[in-house]
Amino acid sequence: MTLKIAQFLSEKQPATPCLVVDVDNVEEHYHSMQAALPSARIYYAVKANPARPVLDRLVFLGACFDAASWEEVDLCLSAGARPENISFGNTVKKASAIKAAYEAGIRLFVFDCIEELEKLARFAPGARVYCRLLVNNHGAEWPLSRKFGTTTESARELLLHARKLGLDPYGVSFHVGSQQICADAYEAAIVQVGTLLADLAADGLRLRMVNLGGGFPIRYRDDVPSIAHFGQVIQRAMKTNFGEALPEILVEPGRFIVGAAGVVCSEVVLASRRGYVDGPRWIYLDIGRFGGLAETEGESIRYALRTERDGEETERVALAGPTCDGADILYEKSYYALPVTLEAGDRVQILGTGAYVSTYCSTRFNGFAPLSEHYI
Amino acid sequence: MTLKIAQFLSEKQPATPCLVVDVDNVEEHYHSMQAALPSARIYYAVKANPARPVLDRLVFLGACFDAASWEEVDLCLSAGARPENISFGNTVKKASAIKAAYEAGIRLFVFDCIEELEKLARFAPGARVYCRLLVNNHGAEWPLSRKFGTTTESARELLLHARKLGLDPYGVSFHVGSQQICADAYEAAIVQVGTLLADLAADGLRLRMVNLGGGFPIRYRDDVPSIAHFGQVIQRAMKTNFGEALPEILVEPGRFIVGAAGVVCSEVVLASRRGYVDGPRWIYLDIGRFGGLAETEGESIRYALRTERDGEETERVALAGPTCDGADILYEKSYYALPVTLEAGDRVQILGTGAYVSTYCSTRFNGFAPLSEHYI
Repeated sequence: MTLKIAQFLSEKQPATPCLVVDVDNVEEHYHSMQAALPSARIYYAVKANPARPVLDRLVFLGACFDAASWEEVDLCLSAGARPENISFGNTVKKASAIKAAYEAGIRLFVFDCIEELEKLARFAPGARVYCRLLVNNHGAEWPLSRKFGTTTESARELLLHARKLGLDPYGVSFHVGSQQICADAYEAAIVQVGTLLADLAADGLRLRMVNLGGGFPIRYRDDVPSIAHFGQVIQRAMKTNFGEALPEILVEPGRFIVGAAGVVCSEVVLASRRGYVDGPRWIYLDIGRFGGLAETEGESIRYALRTERDGEETERVALAGPTCDGADILYEKSYYALPVTLEAGDRVQILGTGAYVSTYCSTRFNGFAPLSEHYI
Repeated sequence: MTLKIAQFLSEKQPATPCLVVDVDNVEEHYHSMQAALPSARIYYAVKANPARPVLDRLVFLGACFDAASWEEVDLCLSAGARPENISFGNTVKKASAIKAAYEAGIRLFVFDCIEELEKLARFAPGARVYCRLLVNNHGAEWPLSRKFGTTTESARELLLHARKLGLDPYGVSFHVGSQQICADAYEAAIVQVGTLLADLAADGLRLRMVNLGGGFPIRYRDDVPSIAHFGQVIQRAMKTNFGEALPEILVEPGRFIVGAAGVVCSEVVLASRRGYVDGPRWIYLDIGRFGGLAETEGESIRYALRTERDGEETERVALAGPTCDGADILYEKSYYALPVTLEAGDRVQILGTGAYVSTYCSTRFNGFAPLSEHYI
């Protein structure tokens, strides 16, 4: 938690649950990413946190933006981003969304299949397009499954076909999975990309760009490798695979830029053993999986917690949200221990919640209003 | 799909994704539940769908309401429900929520532990309270886990203690799990309750109410036992366990009342094999897990689908939502087959989506606006 957030929480005692984001910390992470990968252009993954103060700061810093929908493209434009600095990075786009983005000046689009490529040829004629590859997500705490990406063989055919359709085959992308803690995953994917680009060059098509996606991890409860380490591994792999003929490099960090900048402040609604002699004490917070903490599904993302009673004796707890839904459990299998004296009314801070929290929040499940947000 | 919904969709061609609910169908399900359990009072589980037209119709029919939060209590009151017809049915309540409900005239509250009971004694003095038991959820497609309820031993102590705290120990409740297809689950729970009530009678405390919870199933892709069957099993079990001294019976249906009354109308954004020779064709809809179809998590609830090409040759598909999230997959392991000619722009109707859809919907994940709703 940054000093600014700690002061805000202490002075304002905002109503819970709420998310507090330190926008200066967003800027720090932008700079450290840029320092780790000086040759890369940073396309911030807007979906991680599309709040206007975050976008405003990143526009000011000269960032580029990875938008998942026409609505996100429009948000970036409203915040002052230039169309040439926005990538429409969802492989699944409505024709109407492609059209709207193209008319707004967007000229960079992703695809991973012939059907999407044909849509782009029709509604975004002449645009630069890049093909998403499916790569190994091993090591990611929030892996991306088989939903996106294609094989290198198929990508080769599609990129050649793109040229025939009057599009500009610009590059390839991949995503190693979110909260990816193994830098090797990027290296393996770069090798795959290197082969594809060499094959295409032999076909007479020189791609100019490699989009490394996002996935760069932040510290939750456990240490993760530094962004500098990822930068080194990636740059070495690029050098090995491309020599001096380095393509342009894009990255699409979301969690890394904004995750650590946010803290959710919540309140204990109930703390009880519920009549069971064995087993953990149950702590029910006023935020759960449907109030924004969706990434606790399967206990995938394990947030660090702070209470005002830290330092006192602790005991094992299960943590749950406030709704009547049995699936609204944050942590039951993962080991969490909290002070034995913790009780209803106490505040609990959930760290590292700047990314993928405010937007997952349900509109009103069980009647609870969406998470309120403070950008400081 | 009801005739009224089919006509609405055909005539209005509403923008997708949207939810269309036939409020007359809600009424029909209310009546069939009442017919199946004539001696029970129906407390509609507001969380299933808190839309005002649904509440208005149920108030008109004389229904009671099971509210999960102060906000839901307030919604019911705004719709004209009388305070004595509202139960505050969440075992996890903020003190401020108890206080607000009590001041609004609510006098029926659930609890499952000493800490919550003490809150009720303080902020809802003299109110009727009932204790939630943990019962077996085997057979439920959306089970409720260990998050709620307590043991019969603990319930016995707590109900005796409630009297000492100046509260009115009124009854017990349980929940056999949502979309519960085994009527036996209710029977087993009633046996458990029968023993508890007999033990408490021996202690000099006569409880007057048994709340059977909800969980009554509706037809998705597969047939389920009729509500009449559940009624018969429950009434036989009540008779067997309580003889002529039948306690008051409450039920808390949500899905059963409103689930079948709703249809989500969605559009295919992309349909593609994505370069893979083997495996299913991928169909991406403009609604997914974060647009309201949260109960497809783990492919638990398997909705029936309709397209305008039904009757044509079909092939196996995987179904996914429109977001960049790899977890936003509806069905990949479950067997779904859709017409081979299905393509982007086609409409797909998702049946049985009146319950637990509109409220789970995220505020704006990936920039997508919440599901629009039509009540007809």
